[in-house]
Amino acid sequence: MERSAPPALDLGRDAAALTAELVDIPSVSGTEQPLADAVEAALRTLPWLRVDRHGNNVVARTDAGHGERVVLAGHIDTVPIADNVPARLDADGVLWGCGTSDMKSGVAVQLRIAATVPEPNRDLTFVFYDNEEVAAELNGLGHLATDRPDWLAGDFAVLLEPSDGQVEGGCQGTLRMLLRLPGQRAHSARSWTGENAIHAAAPVLARLAAYRPRRPVIDGLEYREGLNAVGIEGGVAGNVIPDACVVTVNYRYAPDRDEAAAVAHVLEVFEGCGVAEFTVEDHSPGALPGLSHPAARAFIEAVGGEPRPKYGWTDVSRFSALGVPAVNYGPGDPNVAHKRDERVAVAAILHCEERLRAWLTAPAR
Amino acid sequence: MERSAPPALDLGRDAAALTAELVDIPSVSGTEQPLADAVEAALRTLPWLRVDRHGNNVVARTDAGHGERVVLAGHIDTVPIADNVPARLDADGVLWGCGTSDMKSGVAVQLRIAATVPEPNRDLTFVFYDNEEVAAELNGLGHLATDRPDWLAGDFAVLLEPSDGQVEGGCQGTLRMLLRLPGQRAHSARSWTGENAIHAAAPVLARLAAYRPRRPVIDGLEYREGLNAVGIEGGVAGNVIPDACVVTVNYRYAPDRDEAAAVAHVLEVFEGCGVAEFTVEDHSPGALPGLSHPAARAFIEAVGGEPRPKYGWTDVSRFSALGVPAVNYGPGDPNVAHKRDERVAVAAILHCEERLRAWLTAPAR
Repeated sequence: MERSAPPALDLGRDAAALTAELVDIPSVSGTEQPLADAVEAALRTLPWLRVDRHGNNVVARTDAGHGERVVLAGHIDTVPIADNVPARLDADGVLWGCGTSDMKSGVAVQLRIAATVPEPNRDLTFVFYDNEEVAAELNGLGHLATDRPDWLAGDFAVLLEPSDGQVEGGCQGTLRMLLRLPGQRAHSARSWTGENAIHAAAPVLARLAAYRPRRPVIDGLEYREGLNAVGIEGGVAGNVIPDACVVTVNYRYAPDRDEAAAVAHVLEVFEGCGVAEFTVEDHSPGALPGLSHPAARAFIEAVGGEPRPKYGWTDVSRFSALGVPAVNYGPGDPNVAHKRDERVAVAAILHCEERLRAWLTAPAR
Repeated sequence: MERSAPPALDLGRDAAALTAELVDIPSVSGTEQPLADAVEAALRTLPWLRVDRHGNNVVARTDAGHGERVVLAGHIDTVPIADNVPARLDADGVLWGCGTSDMKSGVAVQLRIAATVPEPNRDLTFVFYDNEEVAAELNGLGHLATDRPDWLAGDFAVLLEPSDGQVEGGCQGTLRMLLRLPGQRAHSARSWTGENAIHAAAPVLARLAAYRPRRPVIDGLEYREGLNAVGIEGGVAGNVIPDACVVTVNYRYAPDRDEAAAVAHVLEVFEGCGVAEFTVEDHSPGALPGLSHPAARAFIEAVGGEPRPKYGWTDVSRFSALGVPAVNYGPGDPNVAHKRDERVAVAAILHCEERLRAWLTAPAR
């Protein structure tokens, strides 16, 4: 296949200017190739890095023989453009455009560290991956975890997802289960000849309404669990006693529980409620924050602020599954991600770049 | 519009033979015209009857100046044919075919009484109507009640719907209401920022599960009420705390309650359950059995057996709404209605014909 020369990225400019360059190379999920080409080409100019590619995923590594390796990772795709490309810098130092927050500013910081820290105090792995904004099975980090897990090896990982410049440790797991209540169909004019499956859901909803979620503290971070019905469906016709009712529950759980413990907990909560069948519909485990690792401690010290827990599920969990503790830390504001008026403050990008560089260039202790 | 001559019905044959003739003139709902034509033509040969027609509804009346008038009514349509036309009589005296039970055997009895009782002891009105098996707004008896209520006037009515040769008095009302529970949408990873509308349905389902229906006795008949969820729907997406949940309840109520009392009862049952909105989706009142009326008493004495209540809603309610007490009494077995193996015993048809004739020819007391 013939490829035209990729747009050149100038890694000599600061991370904010580089963010604008990245925004101007559109990379909506599924169309990342031009940007992946540009990233790969730029990294190949840096002699201290070994560069590998898998699909539109690019991985670059130092290999100075440090006893410790840190991974800096970011996705290069964006949600669909909403009249917000090319990037535009306003007079207040705010850069507007698709992906400015989520997460081309983070990718720009990764590229700047790659280009400006030839001799880091720890070995570094830079991961640039595709298809984060779409279905899980397309996720480039997931493909690397399956096909090239060795490329992702490390002692600690930082995902430069928008986190408002705060460290977000680990993430909660999410389990979705279907609870089927049994019944027996009958004409509603003779309801005593049937068994109403919707009525049978009464104790299930009562348990949910009375449920008091845990708030465990892990590595100093307080997580907040939740067990909620996110769907309920029952009924055959307006004159029929229904023979089935299905409640869909979503359990968001702190990362001190693994997948098996999460399932067991749900089964326990609804014990004795008459559920005929439990089915796991979807399950993604959480990720421990790993803040007690020396690299993580040094990282937090370098970037400052108070780490906070991540309630939602994120790709840090993919690192966790490979045994690599991971956190989110990026310059973007998550509240403007995916929005038409997506933006990022230049100062936030530069601060993030500066803090990471400080962490990775400080004398080893 | 040109009409071909209607198939001729031979009212000189017994009701069982006539049932087979009626089955062999297909009259699936919406296609009743040929059968209505045949019924009208046959009735017009009987000089003691005045015959009127409204659409495919045919009404015939004696007018001998009796102080009492009885209505015999039946629908002429059937559910779709299922390879069960023409009618087939087997060696055990069972007649098979679409409509044999529901309710061409009843219509045959009506026609036989019309043809063979020229001087009844009460004035008689014979009503043959269309579209009973389909949507309520198409129902021919409903159209007559609206457009020609005087044609339906009487002191007592018998619907020859399949009732296994038993008198079924009155019918229960049916009310369907939607109960909307409120909530506030949120991401399920931060469920504490929302309000779960499905959890809010817990007290509604608990009330339903604990509900003890009435069994009132009216005119000597014990009715059995029921209050049931026939539908429940809630949920936005697998990761969203839902902001709405709707429970559909069906209240089947005995005919000592009118429509307003039925609605008031449902509102009372769910008082304090946090329902944001009640909506009546569908409502058909019941019908009192009217068994204390002299004509009804004489009828029950003549046909024998123990009257029983009708739990489901039937067209007797349309008579009740016009001030005419009504019962179901027909030769068919309701359990085989609408089935591929629909059938009726010849003996049952002849018994029904004979009993009605006895009632309507006995000397007045």
